[in-house]
Amino acid sequence: MPLSSKNAVAVGVDIGGTNIKIALVTDGPEVLDRRLLPMGSKEDPGAVVAKLSDVVRELGNQACAAIPPVGIGCAGLIDAAQGTVKISPNLFMWRDVPLANLLSQELHVKVTLDNDANVFSIAEGFYGAAKDATNAVFVTLGTGVGGGLKLRGEIYTGSCGFAGEIGHVTIDPDGPVCSCGNRGCLESFAGSGRIVRRARTLIEEQGKQKEWLAKGLASLDDLTARDLGEAARDGNEIAERAFAEAGEYIGIALAGVINLLNPEIVVIGGGVSNAGEPLFRAIRATVTRRAMALSTKCIEIVPAMFGDDAGVVGAAMLVLRNLELRNEEG
Amino acid sequence: MPLSSKNAVAVGVDIGGTNIKIALVTDGPEVLDRRLLPMGSKEDPGAVVAKLSDVVRELGNQACAAIPPVGIGCAGLIDAAQGTVKISPNLFMWRDVPLANLLSQELHVKVTLDNDANVFSIAEGFYGAAKDATNAVFVTLGTGVGGGLKLRGEIYTGSCGFAGEIGHVTIDPDGPVCSCGNRGCLESFAGSGRIVRRARTLIEEQGKQKEWLAKGLASLDDLTARDLGEAARDGNEIAERAFAEAGEYIGIALAGVINLLNPEIVVIGGGVSNAGEPLFRAIRATVTRRAMALSTKCIEIVPAMFGDDAGVVGAAMLVLRNLELRNEEG
Repeated sequence: MPLSSKNAVAVGVDIGGTNIKIALVTDGPEVLDRRLLPMGSKEDPGAVVAKLSDVVRELGNQACAAIPPVGIGCAGLIDAAQGTVKISPNLFMWRDVPLANLLSQELHVKVTLDNDANVFSIAEGFYGAAKDATNAVFVTLGTGVGGGLKLRGEIYTGSCGFAGEIGHVTIDPDGPVCSCGNRGCLESFAGSGRIVRRARTLIEEQGKQKEWLAKGLASLDDLTARDLGEAARDGNEIAERAFAEAGEYIGIALAGVINLLNPEIVVIGGGVSNAGEPLFRAIRATVTRRAMALSTKCIEIVPAMFGDDAGVVGAAMLVLRNLELRNEEG
Repeated sequence: MPLSSKNAVAVGVDIGGTNIKIALVTDGPEVLDRRLLPMGSKEDPGAVVAKLSDVVRELGNQACAAIPPVGIGCAGLIDAAQGTVKISPNLFMWRDVPLANLLSQELHVKVTLDNDANVFSIAEGFYGAAKDATNAVFVTLGTGVGGGLKLRGEIYTGSCGFAGEIGHVTIDPDGPVCSCGNRGCLESFAGSGRIVRRARTLIEEQGKQKEWLAKGLASLDDLTARDLGEAARDGNEIAERAFAEAGEYIGIALAGVINLLNPEIVVIGGGVSNAGEPLFRAIRATVTRRAMALSTKCIEIVPAMFGDDAGVVGAAMLVLRNLELRNEEG
């Protein structure tokens, strides 16, 4: 797509437990180009910064002579003001990592960091599915389960910036131990790891190993949430059931959140949400059954408008939106 | 207390599942006088309006020649703009009751109606324990479990006015059926009915009937949450245990709410909260164990500053606060 001289651009980075998405994004917002880097769960921050710098330079070269500013959304508890990853349970080795500074020193451009779910909320809350909503809840389904809030028209981040952790709402006090140390959080029931383990158990119980290995897997240990998502979209019963069960857990947590916040829309994204209807059907049915009727009467539960790009779009808009607001003021 | 000519006054009414509290309140806010009416769970709205009118007239006569305006906080789902009780699960016969209009026609004064937990939130959020907080969560413990939110300095009521229902956050998907129709809501574990039933079971299991009947009860069936609260404050083990168990359930729900909203304070009131330390100790310990460490580091969990008056103070301030805001504008 030709880049008009009027378009401001930024690089958006979305760091999750499975991979890093990087994209060159205009203030439209429109994605001009994208890259994907695999992310090991024990990846060293220095190695990530080096890999990221290379890709940002390469994408930046397409846009203009100068390297564009960078916005990053990262899983975990983030101190946005300091640009620091405080703790990221799904990136095991990361604790008090000054990620924005490290990348900024490498590239000599402005780097802004926020929680991946807040970044998702900016994309969907101001430009995507909830752009017209006053009160909206955002959920990202991946290795972890993240969340964000738009309340009274603004992103709500709480008293210390840690709000939105819908993945760590308890849905069963005696449930499995979660990455956060608590028991029975939504994430422990609906994170991609649990969904894959559940599907593997069902495959083994039903003796369907051959059918699944025929899809090109070397072993059932290699099964991923992405494989399962494709199978669910193709109507595979086991995959559908694994996502429907996860959807029921998500619905239990969402019913509580809807009773608490009475929003008009819930936007759900992240890799796991690509499973589509089997997942969304179970979420909607559970919410309707469990939340108070008056609060569910007008609620919509929809997939992210930007799909898999929501994270990178929101990350880029972290930077570009500030420019926009400054231009409006000036 | 002598009433200065500068004081505006209103009558605050707090309608709960067990009784109706009525008070004459100044814009201080200060309670000048109060009354208590018992409330049957099947009380007819017409009968309640008649009883209320008499008490409001009587209290009003003390303040001035004219009947003062009335603010009402009522349990259940309330349409504040219309002054209507939509559904009140703890006042079984009430559905689409135009309570504000009925009382206004009787008394010929302005009557304002809101949810009892929102009213509690106004009292504690603007004049009480959370008056300096930006983000606060309010919980009222009684027949039902209500909740309210102050977010970014304002009471948050959601897209249709139904926000704050912390009593209907699911804490165990297979738990008991709740008054709202869902299963395993906090209210089904921590409403006063459940606490009393649990204490009665413990008394019977431990053969302590005689000891309890010596307190002046005709039968254990007459045991109330108020009796239990007094016993807990006196150090009775069974009463302490019943409240500690309820506190743990409340802590499970609050941990999720704290992870979601990252407030700086939680204010807890309502009759059941009079049990004091055995209840609060269990709530605080459970929140510390279950919520994310960064979000609990600076949180305070405190009793209502206005104690049992929080409901009537907030209800009166529903009216007086509007006057105040209007005066500031003028």
